[in-house]
Amino acid sequence: MSSYIKLKKIFQRISQLHYIQRLLMWDEAVMMPEGAGAVRGQALATLNSTTHKMLISKRTQRLLNELKNIPDLPAWDIANLIWMEKKYQSAACISSRLMEDLTTAALACEQNWRKMRAQNNWQDFYPYLEKVFHLTQEIAKRRSDALQLSPYDAMLDEYAPGFNQHSIDLIFTGLKNKLPALIQKITLKQQADQIIKPVGPFGLEKQKQLGLSAMRALCFDFQHGRLDVSHHPFCSGGPRDVRMTTRYTEHEFLGSLFGICHETGHALYEQGLPLKWIDQPVGQIHSMAQHESQSLLIEMEVCRSLAFNEYLITDVREQFGEQSAFTAANLYKLLTEVRPDFIRVDADEVTYPLHVILRYEIEKGLFNHEISLRDLPQYWDESMQKYLALSTKDNYRDGVMQDVHWPSGAFGYFPAYTLGRLMASQFFAAYKQQSPHYEDDFRRGNFKPLHSWLKVNIYEQASFLSTNELLQKTMGKALDPNYFLQHIEARYLKN
Amino acid sequence: MSSYIKLKKIFQRISQLHYIQRLLMWDEAVMMPEGAGAVRGQALATLNSTTHKMLISKRTQRLLNELKNIPDLPAWDIANLIWMEKKYQSAACISSRLMEDLTTAALACEQNWRKMRAQNNWQDFYPYLEKVFHLTQEIAKRRSDALQLSPYDAMLDEYAPGFNQHSIDLIFTGLKNKLPALIQKITLKQQADQIIKPVGPFGLEKQKQLGLSAMRALCFDFQHGRLDVSHHPFCSGGPRDVRMTTRYTEHEFLGSLFGICHETGHALYEQGLPLKWIDQPVGQIHSMAQHESQSLLIEMEVCRSLAFNEYLITDVREQFGEQSAFTAANLYKLLTEVRPDFIRVDADEVTYPLHVILRYEIEKGLFNHEISLRDLPQYWDESMQKYLALSTKDNYRDGVMQDVHWPSGAFGYFPAYTLGRLMASQFFAAYKQQSPHYEDDFRRGNFKPLHSWLKVNIYEQASFLSTNELLQKTMGKALDPNYFLQHIEARYLKN
Repeated sequence: MSSYIKLKKIFQRISQLHYIQRLLMWDEAVMMPEGAGAVRGQALATLNSTTHKMLISKRTQRLLNELKNIPDLPAWDIANLIWMEKKYQSAACISSRLMEDLTTAALACEQNWRKMRAQNNWQDFYPYLEKVFHLTQEIAKRRSDALQLSPYDAMLDEYAPGFNQHSIDLIFTGLKNKLPALIQKITLKQQADQIIKPVGPFGLEKQKQLGLSAMRALCFDFQHGRLDVSHHPFCSGGPRDVRMTTRYTEHEFLGSLFGICHETGHALYEQGLPLKWIDQPVGQIHSMAQHESQSLLIEMEVCRSLAFNEYLITDVREQFGEQSAFTAANLYKLLTEVRPDFIRVDADEVTYPLHVILRYEIEKGLFNHEISLRDLPQYWDESMQKYLALSTKDNYRDGVMQDVHWPSGAFGYFPAYTLGRLMASQFFAAYKQQSPHYEDDFRRGNFKPLHSWLKVNIYEQASFLSTNELLQKTMGKALDPNYFLQHIEARYLKN
Repeated sequence: MSSYIKLKKIFQRISQLHYIQRLLMWDEAVMMPEGAGAVRGQALATLNSTTHKMLISKRTQRLLNELKNIPDLPAWDIANLIWMEKKYQSAACISSRLMEDLTTAALACEQNWRKMRAQNNWQDFYPYLEKVFHLTQEIAKRRSDALQLSPYDAMLDEYAPGFNQHSIDLIFTGLKNKLPALIQKITLKQQADQIIKPVGPFGLEKQKQLGLSAMRALCFDFQHGRLDVSHHPFCSGGPRDVRMTTRYTEHEFLGSLFGICHETGHALYEQGLPLKWIDQPVGQIHSMAQHESQSLLIEMEVCRSLAFNEYLITDVREQFGEQSAFTAANLYKLLTEVRPDFIRVDADEVTYPLHVILRYEIEKGLFNHEISLRDLPQYWDESMQKYLALSTKDNYRDGVMQDVHWPSGAFGYFPAYTLGRLMASQFFAAYKQQSPHYEDDFRRGNFKPLHSWLKVNIYEQASFLSTNELLQKTMGKALDPNYFLQHIEARYLKN
C-alpha cells in the first residue's frame, strides 16, 4: 500500500514536469525570441530525458514489482496502477540514448522540413526523414517486444490505446467503401448552392473579440486558460493552465474562428478533467484519439451546425456590421462545403477520413516492410488518385511533405484523427438522444447543458475506462462508424 | 580529466533546468492565468528539487572528489571547477526536505504579505515571517558549517561572494558617515530648482515605443530577448532568451522608461556572457551584486546623465509632442531630485544606500542574535528616524513590510544593491577615463562604444574573476566607495 503511495508521488512529479514541457512548447511557438531556438531545444531535451529517467528508474520498477499482485484498492486506483505499469513498460524499453537520438534527429528533420517543403524539395529532405524513420522503427521494435504487439500496433497504441491494425482495418474499410460515393452525391447536390463569400478586411481585434465570445459561450474557463497567437493553432499547457492559440488573417475570419472552436474542444476536455486525480495517470486525458474526439465534437458536430450559426450570426454582425453574406444559412453553407483537395488540415469533414486512410495505409506498409520509404511519393500519388481523384505527381509540397507528423517522428498518429471523429459523432448522438431540444439551446447560445453532459460523461471519466468501455457506458455499444455516416447523410443529403 | 568532462555535462543540465525555472518565473508574472497559481507552485517546487538533487547527487560528489588535486587545466577550467565545488558545497549541506519546507513557507508568506501589507497588518503577517526566518536561519547554520563562515556571512556570500560583514561594515560605515550631510547639502541646493512636471496622459503604446527605442539604442539584442508587461519590472529567462518586463501607467512615463533602462542593464549583462562558456558555472553571471552593478551602471550613471537626456528628449518629443517640461535640462532635474522618503524602490540614488544600510544592520542583528524578530518594527522606526528623519511608527506598510525579500527568504540580499551601486560608479569611472568624449556619444544616442567596453571588460569576464579581482583589473584597485561619493558630488553639488 505504501508502495502505491510512493508511486503516486513519482507519477505526480512526472506529470508536473510534463506540464512544464507543454508550457515550454507553447512558449516556443508564441513567445520565444528567434535566436533562442538552439538553447531551447537543448534545455527541452534535458528536461525530457530527466523525466524519462524518473519514469524508468530502478525505484519505479521496484515499487511496481511490489504491487504485481494487484492490491485491494478502489477501482480508480486499480486503473491508475495499470496505467502506471503501462507507462513504465512503454518507456523502460527505450534507452535514454535512443530517446535523445530521436529528439535530435526529429528536430533537424522538422527544421529542414519547414525550409524544404517551401522549396518542394523532396530529394534533400529525404535523408533527414529516413533517419527519423529508422529511429522510430527501432523504437517500435522495442515497444513491440515489451508490449507484445506488432511494431506498427505498438505505435498506434501510443495515440489510440485499445485500437490496432485489425480493428482499424475493419472501421476504415467501411469508410473507404462508402465515402467516395457519398462525396460524389454531396458535391453534385452542392453544385446548385448559391454561396456568398464574406468581404473583408476583418479587423484582427474584432476577430479576437468574436473568438473570445465563442470561447465564453462554449464554457471555456479563463481563470484556467488563455488565448494567444501562433503560426499554427494548438492547445497546450495543463488542465489548470490551458494555453490555446489561433492565427488571424485580415481577408478571412472563419478559418481563425473555427480554429478557435476546435481548440476550445481540446481545452474543455483538459479543463474538465477530475481535479481529485490531477497529476495521476488515470486522471489525465485518455489518448490523442479521445482528445481529437472532443475538439471535433465541438468544432464539427456543434459549431458547424445550422443552430450554432443562428447564434453566431448576431455576434458576427455586431463585430463586422451587415453584409449579404451574413445570414446563418449562408455561413452554414460556407462551413459545410465539400470539395476534394490536397491538404488534410484544410479538408472538409467528408473527405477528411480519406486523407487519414491514405496515410494509415502507407504507414502500415512501411512498418510491415511492404513498401519502401523511398517510394512514398509514388504511393501517395496513387492513393490520392484513387480516393480523391487528384494527382500529386512532382508536387511534394502539397503531397507527401504536407504534414509535420512524420518529420517529428509521430508515425502512427494519423488514425487518431479519424477514430476521434467517429467517436465525436457517437458521443454527440448520445447527447442528442438525451437532450432532444439541444438545437434550441444552441440557437440561444446556451452551451451549458452540453458542457455539463460532456463533463460528467467524458471529461471527468479521464482515463478510467478504455475508449470502447466509455462508449459502451454512454451509448451501449463500442465504436461504430455508422453514427458518423448518419451524421454526414443527415447534414449533407437530407435537406 | 574525463571526470571533469562528466562534471561539465552535469552542470550543463543543471544550468538548462535553471533556465527553465527562470522562464516559468517570467511566465507566472506575465502570462499565467490566475487560477493556475497552485499547480504552478507545485510544478516549480518539483523542478527545483529535481535540480537540487542533480546537484547534490553522489555522482557529483564522487566526480568532485576525483578532482580534489586540481588537475592541469586552462585557467577558465580551473575557475569553473572551483565554482562547481562551491555550488556543490553550498547546496549539499541543505537537505531536499529543508529546501522544500522553505519553498512552501516562503510561498505562503509571500501570498500573505501581498494581502496583509495592503492592510498594514503586521500582527497576522508575523507568524508567516517567523517561520520563513527560522528556516532561513537553519539554512544559514548549515551553510555556515559547510563553508566555514559565520551564519550571516554565509547568507551574504550567496548574493555577494567575496564580501562579508567585516568588509561590508568598512564600506557602509564610510557611507553612513558621509551621506546624511550630503543629503542635507543637496536638498538645500535643490530647493531653488524650478522643475516642470510633464502633463499626461501618455499613451501606453507610445510609452512602449519610447522604451523599445531606448533598448535598441543601448544595444539590447531583440534576437535574444523581449519586453513585456508585469506588475513589478524584472529581468529573467536566460542569456540567449532574456525576458524583460516593465509596467505602464497613463499619467506618468519616466517611471516605466527608467525601469526599462534599469532592466536593460541586467539584460545586456546576460546577453553579453561568453557563448563559449554558456551553461557552465564560470560562464554565468558572477553574483547578484555584480548583476545590480550592471543595471545601475546603465540606469544611474548612463541614463540619468544630462548627456543621455539630451539624446532622449528628441524621442520623447517625437512620441508625446511639445511640452514646456520637455527639455533635457528639465528632465534631468526631474530624474535627479533627492528627497528622503519611506520606500526603497522609489528612492533616489543618494538616499538609497541608507535604506540598504538600515536593512543590513537589522539582518546582522537578527542573525547574530542581538535583536529579536518580534522587535523589527521598533528597530526599523529608530533607524529611519536616525538616517532619514522619518517615522514609520504603526506604518508597517511603508516600513518593515515594504519589501518582498524577507517574506521570500532572501535574507542577506540587500547589501548586493549598494555594493552593486558602488561597483557601477567604479566601473564607469574606468570607462570615462579611457573614453573622455563619452558624453558626445551619449548625446548622439551612440552607446555602442560603451557597450563594447562593457562586453569585453565585464560581461565576457562572467565569473572568471572575483569582484575585487575584476575591479583590480579594470581600475587597479579593489571596491572603493569614493567613486560613488565623487559621482554624487559631481552630479549634485558641482553645477
